[in-house]
Amino acid sequence: MKTIKAAIVGASGYSGQELIYLLSRHANVEITHLTSRQYAGKTVGEVFPRLQGLVGGMFVEPNADKIDTDVAFLALPHGVAVEYAPALLRKGIKVLDLSADFRLKSAETYKEFYEHEHPAPDLLKQSVYGLPELHRDKIRGAQLVACPGCYPTSIILGVAPALKKGLGKPDSIIANSLSGVSGAGRKVAEEYLFTECNESARAYGVPKHRHIGEIEQELSLLAGSSVTISFTPHLIPLNRGIISTIYMTLAKKSDDVLAVYRDFYKAELFVRVSASLPDTKNVQMTNFCDISVRVDSRTNRLVVVTAIDNLTKGAAGQAVQCLNIMYDYAEPIGIV
Amino acid sequence: MKTIKAAIVGASGYSGQELIYLLSRHANVEITHLTSRQYAGKTVGEVFPRLQGLVGGMFVEPNADKIDTDVAFLALPHGVAVEYAPALLRKGIKVLDLSADFRLKSAETYKEFYEHEHPAPDLLKQSVYGLPELHRDKIRGAQLVACPGCYPTSIILGVAPALKKGLGKPDSIIANSLSGVSGAGRKVAEEYLFTECNESARAYGVPKHRHIGEIEQELSLLAGSSVTISFTPHLIPLNRGIISTIYMTLAKKSDDVLAVYRDFYKAELFVRVSASLPDTKNVQMTNFCDISVRVDSRTNRLVVVTAIDNLTKGAAGQAVQCLNIMYDYAEPIGIV
Amino acid sequence: MKTIKAAIVGASGYSGQELIYLLSRHANVEITHLTSRQYAGKTVGEVFPRLQGLVGGMFVEPNADKIDTDVAFLALPHGVAVEYAPALLRKGIKVLDLSADFRLKSAETYKEFYEHEHPAPDLLKQSVYGLPELHRDKIRGAQLVACPGCYPTSIILGVAPALKKGLGKPDSIIANSLSGVSGAGRKVAEEYLFTECNESARAYGVPKHRHIGEIEQELSLLAGSSVTISFTPHLIPLNRGIISTIYMTLAKKSDDVLAVYRDFYKAELFVRVSASLPDTKNVQMTNFCDISVRVDSRTNRLVVVTAIDNLTKGAAGQAVQCLNIMYDYAEPIGIV
Amino acid sequence: MKTIKAAIVGASGYSGQELIYLLSRHANVEITHLTSRQYAGKTVGEVFPRLQGLVGGMFVEPNADKIDTDVAFLALPHGVAVEYAPALLRKGIKVLDLSADFRLKSAETYKEFYEHEHPAPDLLKQSVYGLPELHRDKIRGAQLVACPGCYPTSIILGVAPALKKGLGKPDSIIANSLSGVSGAGRKVAEEYLFTECNESARAYGVPKHRHIGEIEQELSLLAGSSVTISFTPHLIPLNRGIISTIYMTLAKKSDDVLAVYRDFYKAELFVRVSASLPDTKNVQMTNFCDISVRVDSRTNRLVVVTAIDNLTKGAAGQAVQCLNIMYDYAEPIGIV
Repeated sequence: MKTIKAAIVGASGYSGQELIYLLSRHANVEITHLTSRQYAGKTVGEVFPRLQGLVGGMFVEPNADKIDTDVAFLALPHGVAVEYAPALLRKGIKVLDLSADFRLKSAETYKEFYEHEHPAPDLLKQSVYGLPELHRDKIRGAQLVACPGCYPTSIILGVAPALKKGLGKPDSIIANSLSGVSGAGRKVAEEYLFTECNESARAYGVPKHRHIGEIEQELSLLAGSSVTISFTPHLIPLNRGIISTIYMTLAKKSDDVLAVYRDFYKAELFVRVSASLPDTKNVQMTNFCDISVRVDSRTNRLVVVTAIDNLTKGAAGQAVQCLNIMYDYAEPIGIV
Repeated sequence: MKTIKAAIVGASGYSGQELIYLLSRHANVEITHLTSRQYAGKTVGEVFPRLQGLVGGMFVEPNADKIDTDVAFLALPHGVAVEYAPALLRKGIKVLDLSADFRLKSAETYKEFYEHEHPAPDLLKQSVYGLPELHRDKIRGAQLVACPGCYPTSIILGVAPALKKGLGKPDSIIANSLSGVSGAGRKVAEEYLFTECNESARAYGVPKHRHIGEIEQELSLLAGSSVTISFTPHLIPLNRGIISTIYMTLAKKSDDVLAVYRDFYKAELFVRVSASLPDTKNVQMTNFCDISVRVDSRTNRLVVVTAIDNLTKGAAGQAVQCLNIMYDYAEPIGIV
Repeated sequence: MKTIKAAIVGASGYSGQELIYLLSRHANVEITHLTSRQYAGKTVGEVFPRLQGLVGGMFVEPNADKIDTDVAFLALPHGVAVEYAPALLRKGIKVLDLSADFRLKSAETYKEFYEHEHPAPDLLKQSVYGLPELHRDKIRGAQLVACPGCYPTSIILGVAPALKKGLGKPDSIIANSLSGVSGAGRKVAEEYLFTECNESARAYGVPKHRHIGEIEQELSLLAGSSVTISFTPHLIPLNRGIISTIYMTLAKKSDDVLAVYRDFYKAELFVRVSASLPDTKNVQMTNFCDISVRVDSRTNRLVVVTAIDNLTKGAAGQAVQCLNIMYDYAEPIGIV
Repeated sequence: MKTIKAAIVGASGYSGQELIYLLSRHANVEITHLTSRQYAGKTVGEVFPRLQGLVGGMFVEPNADKIDTDVAFLALPHGVAVEYAPALLRKGIKVLDLSADFRLKSAETYKEFYEHEHPAPDLLKQSVYGLPELHRDKIRGAQLVACPGCYPTSIILGVAPALKKGLGKPDSIIANSLSGVSGAGRKVAEEYLFTECNESARAYGVPKHRHIGEIEQELSLLAGSSVTISFTPHLIPLNRGIISTIYMTLAKKSDDVLAVYRDFYKAELFVRVSASLPDTKNVQMTNFCDISVRVDSRTNRLVVVTAIDNLTKGAAGQAVQCLNIMYDYAEPIGIV
């Protein structure tokens, strides 16, 4: 297999660190370009003591003109990725963006949720939503992949079989999600201090979290009609992990919902459907999405519970999974 | 104010410990009888080093015949409290039971959720559900008070204004709750080991947790019709605290749902309605129930979020609040 | 008992919040003045949702000229307290300072550890080190009390009996301390983010932490000769609590070291000497210092372990204890 | 490279789980035999949901007679490993024991610390202490390797350069260690419940923890004379990780102690000496031992701080490292 050269742009946050770690272990990837405004001039080991002795290399100032790799991962804040992507794409570099900048197909939806005009609406048409379990074929040929957010991954994978197989009513979907604190990135703010998060559990972003846009986009595709959902994220004292508990009214009787889910994902390496309810600790630092499903016959509702690691299947791991698809590498390379 | 004598039966669990602590600080209560099968013969300070130097007294073997107090708190496992209550009641002792044994009015519902016949169905009629915000008057005259469970407290208080004021549709209620690990009591089981709970978040008891019975009983009373709900409890790595996020379809337009909630609880000391979303850390080791409410106009749903401390407002604190009502003490004595 | 008026200057950090909470419950204290540059114009309930419904009052801009209380607590950063104290003292207000500004008797030692000249060296002579167990009589008559740091409290109380009774060699003292993250205050810095502290344990400030100065000052007084110690603080994932494990070479054989410790503290309400090793969870949110002691006959060393809550006995609780002494209130008022 | 067959005996604890995980990823190892009394008949995925889809295989009842592999890892409780080892050794199987049964050279020392006669003292002479950084050559030719305990690994590696290079006085060593709760294994006991460990920090096993025996054995070898140490283990609320802070009186002036440490470990892949103080989060789920060292010129003491993951470098990872040495595999295979 040929080895490709990869750049990681904005590699100093938690997703960036995870990308460095995963790609440094990938048999077919060589990281040749690492950027960080904050850490330019420092080595990976200096910035991330955890990676000392494992990963070499030095951070440089971000500059799209100087990037000359086969592929570039953008681990930049929302709104910044869109500044770097066009120049890279023009050079023929494949771009895997971990921000929200290219996830929405519709510039209007983008404006609704992000409250400003999208600066490069043409690229929205070009980009592919990087959820391999739903869009593997499009990812294979894409030049610009918009990797899904962590909450959306956990919810879309949980709802997809029910909508696709007509088990659940599209207008009844309520997703209640719990996230570890790394979901907020390495943002230095009082609300993310240890003393403010430990022994704390709280909802936030009610009722209109930005991630709703991409979730509804994907669920609408699955349902074949416009889907609107309720979504409540919560912050809980974990480092890494998301649990999404999703409620839907049953559209029809099904003999065995679990069997439908198992069948739907039977070819998927990274989705584990089980009779047991998932637990974040079983997916932490893995690329798995664990799913279980229960029928509540008293209320005629379906309850789906999913668990992922927000930095792996919810960010860096999924990006590497997309990379493997784009380059026809075995899908688990570097992430199992 | 006269001082009363109190017994705590089964005082060796977390709720029992909390009761000892609260009652030892109560200006009008003297703890004169403490029982524990496991710790009989040991002092409070030996069993609970935290209380050393604060609370004296010694545990004795539980024996209803030897209890000769004004009031007895039962902090016993479900199914055991019902063995002790009748003898105490016959002696004229007021009983505040923290177990589930007397919470349900209907022996059939009891059988449905607890899977055996209720051993003393007559007492079900006599007992009063000890949620002061809804049943203060009945608690005042009660001899047997069945203190609500922790999940039920957090959910019923969150739903009550919406049902009572006709804001939410009774058949649309979904309650998604997160609990700290002390909710499982001091049960020594692998699933509650630190290493199994830390960095873990998981749903359990889906879809038919036992607490649903008492929740539906109380919500049906509020709605004036039979209510069936979906309820999913989750275990998260906190010591103490419950967050319940409750979804309801709006029954009508309301100009200001928050104002309705504020008005509903305006006379309640222990319910704090706020525009800000609640956080377990703000109620930990307090008897408060913090509530906030949001309208999701995109889906026409109401989202209510509540927070309590499962051992205080969800157990021992609420029991003391009931005691204060029964004896006409100022309601916050010993719990503020 | 007469009621006094108290000001809390700089009340927006964790120690300040704890002071507000404790003083609001104190039978003989009325908080009449609360300052915070950051929160001026906001109510206590707005700034600290935990205290909503419990404590009224509004923060004002800090201005020593406008303070007209009997007593003022300074919960200001090191170096700032010294700017406020002189004006307050001139007005005859009693000052309890929680910072390090007045803890050292020697201006030279201050310069050695804080690396600048002390701005008001005369006040160092006037101030009393507010550790009641050692300086109760001086505290009683003091106008300026310098409340000890959290690490020093946990170490000095652990070493005092051994030095005073000649059990341990003064030149052999090594103190190894573990602190919860609230010890760093509400400082918004990357190193204190949840994700950086959870699943993390680390030493810091090796080998010359600033607190060594006051520890050595007090230990030298106890030993009657100059004492130099080794001290290593560690940050561990707790909200509140300090464990100090202290090693000393035995100076002589002692029949029963534990008995010596028990005797030394027999009149102290807030020191609990026990054969069992202490645990932070037993002192959390209390003003107790738990101590146990073991002789290691293999190495001829004494091992003392102490536990306190850094915000209570290590800060706000101890300040209230000093207040009670200054005003001849019963020592546990407001802190038990 | 040839592939070897491995058995894991007693694979149901945390060390066993980690061994399964690491060996399943090892390029030259095939796990062909997994035993567990508790889980016989269940698959790896059923017992460890985390490993579902990653590792196949089924647990069988432990029976030394049925083991027919090249190598056997014993992840059994202390006192049980010694029952299995002799039969395996007689068959020519190489044994890597993770228990304490074969770590001590002296049967008398064993009796002193374990309080009973060693059942197979002859094997003590044969066994090699599996700390690669000190005994690589002996490990290479060993048939029975006694893998060190987690505390000993963290302490011996921290002290070795100082003793070997004569920097520290052998009679002055004090080791103060902090361990995550997985160090207690998956033992179901009240003291390890989440609610008893979270917000808790405590010393235990003072003053004579069993691990002292093997630590002193190895330090005495390094010093060339009998060494006696003080050692205090503490339990802190982490899943995985140990910090050891070690104090020694300087034996001589050294221009640059850090340079001595760097030089001592310059050929070691798994020891990272750094000017920065170590943090458990940087070694969690890795086989690294991070070390830093400081001179406290005020007290003439050396302070060494080390960090390891107790389940990796402190148990399973180190065992795999030994395996790699025994079979001449590249040392990092399967553990980087």
